[in-house]
Amino acid sequence: MSGNTFGTLFTVTTFGESHGPAIGCIVDGCPPGMELSEADIQPDLDRRRPGTSRHVTQRQEPDQVEILSGVYQGKTTGTPIALLIRNTDQRSKDYGNIVESFRPGHADFTYWNKYGIRDPRGGGRSSARLTAPVVGAGAIAKKWMFEKFGTQFFAGLTQLGDIEIPFQAWRHTSENPFFAPSADQDLIARMEDFMDALRRDGDSIGAKIEVHATKVPVGLGEPIYDKLDAEIAFAMMGINAVKGVEIGAGFKSIRQRGSEHGDEITQQGFLGNNAGGVLGGISTGQDITVSMAIKPTSSIRVPRQSIDIHDNPVNVETFGRHDPCVGIRAAPIAEAMLALVLMDHALRHRAQCGDVPKQPIGI
Amino acid sequence: MSGNTFGTLFTVTTFGESHGPAIGCIVDGCPPGMELSEADIQPDLDRRRPGTSRHVTQRQEPDQVEILSGVYQGKTTGTPIALLIRNTDQRSKDYGNIVESFRPGHADFTYWNKYGIRDPRGGGRSSARLTAPVVGAGAIAKKWMFEKFGTQFFAGLTQLGDIEIPFQAWRHTSENPFFAPSADQDLIARMEDFMDALRRDGDSIGAKIEVHATKVPVGLGEPIYDKLDAEIAFAMMGINAVKGVEIGAGFKSIRQRGSEHGDEITQQGFLGNNAGGVLGGISTGQDITVSMAIKPTSSIRVPRQSIDIHDNPVNVETFGRHDPCVGIRAAPIAEAMLALVLMDHALRHRAQCGDVPKQPIGI
Amino acid sequence: MSGNTFGTLFTVTTFGESHGPAIGCIVDGCPPGMELSEADIQPDLDRRRPGTSRHVTQRQEPDQVEILSGVYQGKTTGTPIALLIRNTDQRSKDYGNIVESFRPGHADFTYWNKYGIRDPRGGGRSSARLTAPVVGAGAIAKKWMFEKFGTQFFAGLTQLGDIEIPFQAWRHTSENPFFAPSADQDLIARMEDFMDALRRDGDSIGAKIEVHATKVPVGLGEPIYDKLDAEIAFAMMGINAVKGVEIGAGFKSIRQRGSEHGDEITQQGFLGNNAGGVLGGISTGQDITVSMAIKPTSSIRVPRQSIDIHDNPVNVETFGRHDPCVGIRAAPIAEAMLALVLMDHALRHRAQCGDVPKQPIGI
Amino acid sequence: MSGNTFGTLFTVTTFGESHGPAIGCIVDGCPPGMELSEADIQPDLDRRRPGTSRHVTQRQEPDQVEILSGVYQGKTTGTPIALLIRNTDQRSKDYGNIVESFRPGHADFTYWNKYGIRDPRGGGRSSARLTAPVVGAGAIAKKWMFEKFGTQFFAGLTQLGDIEIPFQAWRHTSENPFFAPSADQDLIARMEDFMDALRRDGDSIGAKIEVHATKVPVGLGEPIYDKLDAEIAFAMMGINAVKGVEIGAGFKSIRQRGSEHGDEITQQGFLGNNAGGVLGGISTGQDITVSMAIKPTSSIRVPRQSIDIHDNPVNVETFGRHDPCVGIRAAPIAEAMLALVLMDHALRHRAQCGDVPKQPIGI
Repeated sequence: MSGNTFGTLFTVTTFGESHGPAIGCIVDGCPPGMELSEADIQPDLDRRRPGTSRHVTQRQEPDQVEILSGVYQGKTTGTPIALLIRNTDQRSKDYGNIVESFRPGHADFTYWNKYGIRDPRGGGRSSARLTAPVVGAGAIAKKWMFEKFGTQFFAGLTQLGDIEIPFQAWRHTSENPFFAPSADQDLIARMEDFMDALRRDGDSIGAKIEVHATKVPVGLGEPIYDKLDAEIAFAMMGINAVKGVEIGAGFKSIRQRGSEHGDEITQQGFLGNNAGGVLGGISTGQDITVSMAIKPTSSIRVPRQSIDIHDNPVNVETFGRHDPCVGIRAAPIAEAMLALVLMDHALRHRAQCGDVPKQPIGI
Repeated sequence: MSGNTFGTLFTVTTFGESHGPAIGCIVDGCPPGMELSEADIQPDLDRRRPGTSRHVTQRQEPDQVEILSGVYQGKTTGTPIALLIRNTDQRSKDYGNIVESFRPGHADFTYWNKYGIRDPRGGGRSSARLTAPVVGAGAIAKKWMFEKFGTQFFAGLTQLGDIEIPFQAWRHTSENPFFAPSADQDLIARMEDFMDALRRDGDSIGAKIEVHATKVPVGLGEPIYDKLDAEIAFAMMGINAVKGVEIGAGFKSIRQRGSEHGDEITQQGFLGNNAGGVLGGISTGQDITVSMAIKPTSSIRVPRQSIDIHDNPVNVETFGRHDPCVGIRAAPIAEAMLALVLMDHALRHRAQCGDVPKQPIGI
Repeated sequence: MSGNTFGTLFTVTTFGESHGPAIGCIVDGCPPGMELSEADIQPDLDRRRPGTSRHVTQRQEPDQVEILSGVYQGKTTGTPIALLIRNTDQRSKDYGNIVESFRPGHADFTYWNKYGIRDPRGGGRSSARLTAPVVGAGAIAKKWMFEKFGTQFFAGLTQLGDIEIPFQAWRHTSENPFFAPSADQDLIARMEDFMDALRRDGDSIGAKIEVHATKVPVGLGEPIYDKLDAEIAFAMMGINAVKGVEIGAGFKSIRQRGSEHGDEITQQGFLGNNAGGVLGGISTGQDITVSMAIKPTSSIRVPRQSIDIHDNPVNVETFGRHDPCVGIRAAPIAEAMLALVLMDHALRHRAQCGDVPKQPIGI
Repeated sequence: MSGNTFGTLFTVTTFGESHGPAIGCIVDGCPPGMELSEADIQPDLDRRRPGTSRHVTQRQEPDQVEILSGVYQGKTTGTPIALLIRNTDQRSKDYGNIVESFRPGHADFTYWNKYGIRDPRGGGRSSARLTAPVVGAGAIAKKWMFEKFGTQFFAGLTQLGDIEIPFQAWRHTSENPFFAPSADQDLIARMEDFMDALRRDGDSIGAKIEVHATKVPVGLGEPIYDKLDAEIAFAMMGINAVKGVEIGAGFKSIRQRGSEHGDEITQQGFLGNNAGGVLGGISTGQDITVSMAIKPTSSIRVPRQSIDIHDNPVNVETFGRHDPCVGIRAAPIAEAMLALVLMDHALRHRAQCGDVPKQPIGI
């Protein structure tokens, strides 16, 4: 209960630090009999891994995953699936100057105050590197949800600082280095220029991410507390640097009237999706639509006022390899988290209700 | 694991439906030796209960709480504390017309699809009435957090539809029927007029709520997954009708640079609170600041297109007693949820780290 | 996590003290659509309740159960089922002399040392009275297991002090005041005489209980840690006064060879049941057979050496109403606990494996 | 919740199969700041590992443990500690003949019926090899319990088939190949002869194990359900091949009177330990004393009647490397499990009660 397990019935327990020998996870509760190999997992890890463009951290990690258990003759057996990823490109000297200082906006300060000790190399466990095992686990959940229900997961960058990115199509997210769901080359060029300037400034920037699930079974989610939307909010707010989460109409709901917000229903399906696919904490069968705000990274070269572990005032400048916009690589992470939540609730649903959720009207 | 328990070490398990004989909860994990009686709990229930102004539902419920266990000679014993609240003003005929129809934007549809059966009287378990036991449990958490750390909880309405409510002081929330943290009588009058017109229209409206905790110990929250901000997002998104949650700068973070967002630290404390009191999932000792979007109620008189349980098209108009803005009464609920999260994490902290979290610099 | 919840997917959270206003529980995770009323629960409560013969405590409690939630029009809805039982016959003066002293062999000492406070009236929460809510919850589990799989639960007293009770048939347990599965009237008479003499001595006696489940689906139980037999041991050892638990051949296995112990399998079924219905932590489809040792009650009139809360030496004699053999009323409790374990694991099974477990060969 | 996690606050999640590439675990919830290296863990693994005498399986495994995370500069950081043990001596051909047959008394049958698939190599996940990660995790718990409270753990073989082993001293368990707490060389010789004959017969034998903890803090354990003795029973019954568990007087309690069983208390301490160190589910501060029955291994050369996965009758003889008495190597496993339970409850205690449990009177 120290929080390193995600999920209730389909669980992921992770371990590792940015500059330790390895990171990984144990995935428990996977139904038996599903075909699974590293080839099902590696592609999502490759989408997330660092060093793939000049706009993300230059750390070189192959993020090669090894399945250590739970699979026999190419099929899941129902026993725990352990995933191991060795760290290969640690350069701890990069972090020498922040071993005793707290970066403004960074977990340095809170880890130190909580535990009285912290692994400062690469941010230790607070590093975004620790999202890799979750992306691996998410690939398993995605596969099961797709085979079982046809559910698919899509995420992309919809805003970079002040640059809004109008949605065109999910497939474009793989065609540019920003996971932008757009083929607008002028827009992409503006983003490139913006990021290049930002990097020269040694600064970082916030972003907005959107994640959807399609062909979601109806009936997933528990009515109180462990609501599907509450669990999604938990999952998304738990991703490094996320400061806000919306489902469906989100903050726009504030200004809406009931007669506008409530999605009307016909025999052909819902006439809108202000609900974002969830009513009363339970999936409606509509697409799940979530967006989230991601803060700018705290590891920047711009000098900032802070204190050190001895309470002395210091000026902090962070050199080394960092993402100037952690939002960029957040898209595959958001997909993975959403997949984990939905699969967990699919298993919870069949525990109590004993059948595959039905596809609802018009969907 | 059907979701009716909130919390990990300090847990609240609730039961009940809107029009059943009673609602209530079992609070488990409360430390022994704290003075506790109904008088500590009733005031928060009174703040939340219906029928206190013409702007909320006219259902008359005294919401009188009875402690059934866990207290001996006025002190908690460490055993479970059961709270019981009898329902007294059920008028099930009010709901006759929606027994077989699904209100657009309501949990009717999802409960029916999930369980194949639902208690339609007053929304059954999906009713906001079910927040009463949580408010009772939250009063216990508030008391413990205050006695132990001086922590206090404040919440209020900061937006009603298009009407923004500039913050003046928390104490004003008890001086108007809207929990508005404002003494601006013109503003309050505008809100009264707006609500009166809305009621005549038989429509409902969204709202924004803000909740703060002050004098929060540093070090609460687990670094991955069970992050303090993730748990807060889970708690808030789990409140009926919430569609979005922000911590600190929230969605404003998207446009911020790292040099602007990261709160600088001095020997006297933090120079800002974009973090909203949480870094890396762990409390910093700053105020926790959260805001949330609440959708308009789905039970409205405006006729709407829908289907019934036989998949036939119907027109739904909902009569009876309903809140035209569920956001109004959400303030004490948000306080309660935040208190439950913080107390739970205070207990989790001392399990692993074995001491009372230290108050941080300058606070 | 203060331990007052039993189960993982089908959970029972209890509250109450022996002499408080009420005891009860919340049952969560029950599948929707099962017919349920108080009439399904009351009979098992009546079997367990005190005052039914001169050989058990003379406290008079009707143990009338009230369902407060989770049932609509006679069927479960999938939401929590709250059970309430009012205490009606508290005589706290009976316990006046033990408020500050620790009875040898009683939880007085440990509660005091753990919490620094305890409710001494009737043993507070440590009283066997707190098994009543569990028996109520167990009746729900029994009903579901029977309707779903035909599973039935039987328990009885197989030894009372030195008196061994050869098994004849389960139906006899309702024909004598000892839950003895025997119609041997001489034996029953010997037990009556023994108990009468014991009562005159003001002493108490240990007992052995056996509990079986028949028509158990194959495949229930998780292979490591949450093994079916481990959970059964947990459940049984958690019943008041239990000091030992055996599954199948139990302690006789020590002297067995593998060629004798391992139950051979034919197309018609197993040729023995040394396994007690569990292999590798998973049910085989054979009968589950469990036995347990129950210690003699610690509330006796025989004077004993002890200390009080001030560490002063005292002589303790306990007057008032007590069971001279708690083992007698333990039979319905053991049935209830076994039913809770099996139902919980049936739900866990279908979460991961998605189907009703098959009946195995020859059964 | 597929059962592969042990513990509530101090948790161990294991993975791996007997003949997969590796086995291991993630230990979560360890307090920060404790010195820890592989050298603290390896000795217990060496005590458990196979191939150390002719009386146990001849599989050669160095069981070399690697710490992958959670330790920085030789101290625990409060983040998850991952332990990895590579399998090095798999000989899967040994198991060729049992791939499709069910060994009487073995988990083969139940795994197949539960999952519809199983890894038959070396028993897959049901192999006793999977106790190695737990022994590793237990070494961490032992270290913490000793440093914090002086608690120590001892286990040994007290019966081998019909041979009873009178207790002399725990230190002798390291002086013979049986973990017998005896220096009686005649007895040891009898055991050697017995085991040699058994091996020639191709048969196996049951055993009895006893495990103690000394200097246990008072107050550990939750009063209902998660009782300390219930958790111990859960832990012990969960060890491979265990069929019975006793605490303190155990099954002897059946014949005891209350005046004999209840341990009297003086200012100098308890006058007996029928309680086995637990009253009302909470530790008394006395030694915890537990014994357990271990069944004979099911992998034997003696031919036995069974069926295969196609329901055809077969004769099963199991060749290959197996323990003829799994009880022998169970001693370090029992110590580890008891340490895990006590540490978990120590953390749970301080979550709710906020202090280190006091040492009780006279101890």
